[in-house]
Amino acid sequence: MKHTKVKDLLNSTKPVDDVTVKGWVRTFRNNQFLAINDGSVIHNIQAVVDFENTPAETLKRLTPSAAVSIKGNLVESQGAGQKFEIQVKELEVLGDSDAEEYPIQLKNRPSLEFLREKAHLRVRTNAFGAIMRVRSVLSFAVHQYFQENGFVYVNTPIITGSDAEGAGEMFRVTSLPAQNPPVTQEGTVNYEEDFFGKETNLTVSGQLEAETYAMALGQVYTFGPTFRAENSNTSRHLAEFWMIEPEVAFNDLDANMDLAEDFIKYVIKYVMERCADDLEFLDKRLADEEKQKPQAERSGMGLLEKLQFVLENNFKRVSYTEAIDILKSSKPNKNKKFQYLIEEWGADLQSEHERFLVEKHFKSPVILFDYPAKIKAFYMRLNDDGKTVRAMDILFPGIGEIVGGSQREERLDVLQQKIAELGIDEKELWWYLDTRRFGTAVHSGFGLGFERLVLFVTGMTNIRDVIPFPRTPQNAEF
Amino acid sequence: MKHTKVKDLLNSTKPVDDVTVKGWVRTFRNNQFLAINDGSVIHNIQAVVDFENTPAETLKRLTPSAAVSIKGNLVESQGAGQKFEIQVKELEVLGDSDAEEYPIQLKNRPSLEFLREKAHLRVRTNAFGAIMRVRSVLSFAVHQYFQENGFVYVNTPIITGSDAEGAGEMFRVTSLPAQNPPVTQEGTVNYEEDFFGKETNLTVSGQLEAETYAMALGQVYTFGPTFRAENSNTSRHLAEFWMIEPEVAFNDLDANMDLAEDFIKYVIKYVMERCADDLEFLDKRLADEEKQKPQAERSGMGLLEKLQFVLENNFKRVSYTEAIDILKSSKPNKNKKFQYLIEEWGADLQSEHERFLVEKHFKSPVILFDYPAKIKAFYMRLNDDGKTVRAMDILFPGIGEIVGGSQREERLDVLQQKIAELGIDEKELWWYLDTRRFGTAVHSGFGLGFERLVLFVTGMTNIRDVIPFPRTPQNAEF
Repeated sequence: MKHTKVKDLLNSTKPVDDVTVKGWVRTFRNNQFLAINDGSVIHNIQAVVDFENTPAETLKRLTPSAAVSIKGNLVESQGAGQKFEIQVKELEVLGDSDAEEYPIQLKNRPSLEFLREKAHLRVRTNAFGAIMRVRSVLSFAVHQYFQENGFVYVNTPIITGSDAEGAGEMFRVTSLPAQNPPVTQEGTVNYEEDFFGKETNLTVSGQLEAETYAMALGQVYTFGPTFRAENSNTSRHLAEFWMIEPEVAFNDLDANMDLAEDFIKYVIKYVMERCADDLEFLDKRLADEEKQKPQAERSGMGLLEKLQFVLENNFKRVSYTEAIDILKSSKPNKNKKFQYLIEEWGADLQSEHERFLVEKHFKSPVILFDYPAKIKAFYMRLNDDGKTVRAMDILFPGIGEIVGGSQREERLDVLQQKIAELGIDEKELWWYLDTRRFGTAVHSGFGLGFERLVLFVTGMTNIRDVIPFPRTPQNAEF
Repeated sequence: MKHTKVKDLLNSTKPVDDVTVKGWVRTFRNNQFLAINDGSVIHNIQAVVDFENTPAETLKRLTPSAAVSIKGNLVESQGAGQKFEIQVKELEVLGDSDAEEYPIQLKNRPSLEFLREKAHLRVRTNAFGAIMRVRSVLSFAVHQYFQENGFVYVNTPIITGSDAEGAGEMFRVTSLPAQNPPVTQEGTVNYEEDFFGKETNLTVSGQLEAETYAMALGQVYTFGPTFRAENSNTSRHLAEFWMIEPEVAFNDLDANMDLAEDFIKYVIKYVMERCADDLEFLDKRLADEEKQKPQAERSGMGLLEKLQFVLENNFKRVSYTEAIDILKSSKPNKNKKFQYLIEEWGADLQSEHERFLVEKHFKSPVILFDYPAKIKAFYMRLNDDGKTVRAMDILFPGIGEIVGGSQREERLDVLQQKIAELGIDEKELWWYLDTRRFGTAVHSGFGLGFERLVLFVTGMTNIRDVIPFPRTPQNAEF
């Protein structure tokens, strides 16, 4: 028997006889009003049960999260809150859910922390259903943007034999026995006997491989999982997260900034148009959460307001040098309120400084560019001043860094010198250097941590709540 | 200076003055005709160089793969082979490519094997450019299909603490020292000191996690990397590959077959419409390759013909039991031409049997279903006969198994018994079993190895040629 999705029933323009709906019970009130959700939309459909002609045994089984199949007529609802409801003619419980044992008792207002331990069930709540639908549509918007604009999607390798990226600590991937692995004559682990014949790790970035593709296909992007084996137990870090990395031949840093800003605005607009219901719910959720906070800690802007603000305003473009000047003469620096005081040019910016610039000073997303070479990666293009590189970071309110990118060093000799200074063996990067040996050209790209974008768009505050099964230190359940 | 893509220039409807194009030299003939490609399309644009007024030094630098910027007028071409060409007014070599050193010498007709060792450069050839553009559009078609049909994209974890999936050998992911790891009092490796506080591996499938999401959101799909640490050095296996796994609540096996068939036809149709040029090139490439083969080994059908055939014909649905009857009485079985003779019901089908059914007997894609429980995974729904399960495999000509799926065992007690029989600790799967404890329902899904689909659509024969940087035993370069 073909069933109809709740979303389609709620969007119906007229009553329909004999519809079937399948889903899970959210609530059952007054022995009569059954709220059913099937995940297609945040709203439930109300099914009015003919309780006088339904066995008491069956009514008892209509507990939260029980799976049901309902047949009946879709009619205009007499009650408030919904346009249509179903007058139940047949009701079948497909799968029970013991009300005492079901782990998520909504009346106890389970915390986000508690729900994280039930990651397989939390998606049955309104908030996580909304977050995961938004995440999905946002993913699609990413692909749609790049495909519409002639980019080629590239799946760069997850397991990498290259460890020269330097973006962070890596996880080792191995098939060797964990105890007493084979050793060389020198007594070190003999990786030649490992699966790939060498030491391999999980990728921290697909950028270097993407660059080789950009130098052939022109415009490419990656969108895949990346990893950090860093012991960061913060609300902004995951050991496993999804990253988007476009790379464009012939783009300089200005074009790179334009691309990043256009891209972010496009995907935010896209979800605002397509996930209105879910975002409205999340907007209210955030407003409720804000009310619990002391006045001084409240953000001041609602979720939808904040998204609209990003769409309507240009990201402020500020050089690192300007930013340092602003920070040096800022109140929190003078009053020694910053944990790390800004004393001179060359200092690495901390989260507190980024937040000051974005949330207090500019009150807008900010693109910082032309950073000191010393605090940035080896592949970034050196400016003529010899001390700054064509790097850019995009900083968002409440999130901090959401994008890190740069124009890449396209000059073989400059790149080789940089690699030598860092003590990296050139042989490790032979294939990367080949792109500079054969038909090199100006090119640029950036990386965007997808979960940080989801965090911003959903108004959530902990990154563990915007990925289905978060991976963090001491935590790889499910 | 804004430049125009080659694709847009070739699609121009009229001459245009003062266009700029940036790309890489493919060929330079007669000191005059420069073929430039920028990856936006398989075709090159011809730029006619005013060689009499160009320094000989510059002309010498127009070698294969050199990066150039050209300014000139787009005019109707006098020559055959192209509608438009550029009359060059300004020419700049952005990046040289030493003709002697450039590793890919097309005149030597480099083999696919050779090109695999130059995976960072092979994408600069016509064939690999075409393959990777097709791969990208095919990826997008996957997302588009599911999003249009109300599926939610779910990123299931790559690093998993669960090893009960049983789909294959796993890679270990670890931060422990490779030598002398911490040990417990019992002398075994103390994984409590590892990053996640337990032993973790790379996922072989996101299915179990996707099921938990399907039981809340109704229809979900994954599309991400999966891994096998198996020493399979074949043209059909990768250690790292991308898999698509839809999972649908309330779908039985018939609905699952309908979904898989509809999905495959949709994505093939999608690329045929959008990658006509690339597929035409690949069609010719395959035809040329076929000509090198002895008559008996030729496939008989061209690439485009084969794709059209799949679109226009229903996949033949055949039960395992029927298939065994067909195979038992087949000529190769009677004449003992099969390496593994089919003697009785229960035998696992080998690649030779699958190929016989698809390529000789039915001459069509085949969906085999209702396999013996003994040769299939624990989570597949047991039929009332007590010996078969609601499994399905889709077999494609030249590829073999492209999809494996099933209706899932939704009954808690049956599933628990199966798990116990296999000696799996129920505690390992507590969260998976929860989906059967709370609101269980009929549901189904399948896995499709994305590279096998790309293989089929591009007409390539080695799976290493349809992923940018293949990972296979002894090979993790780049």
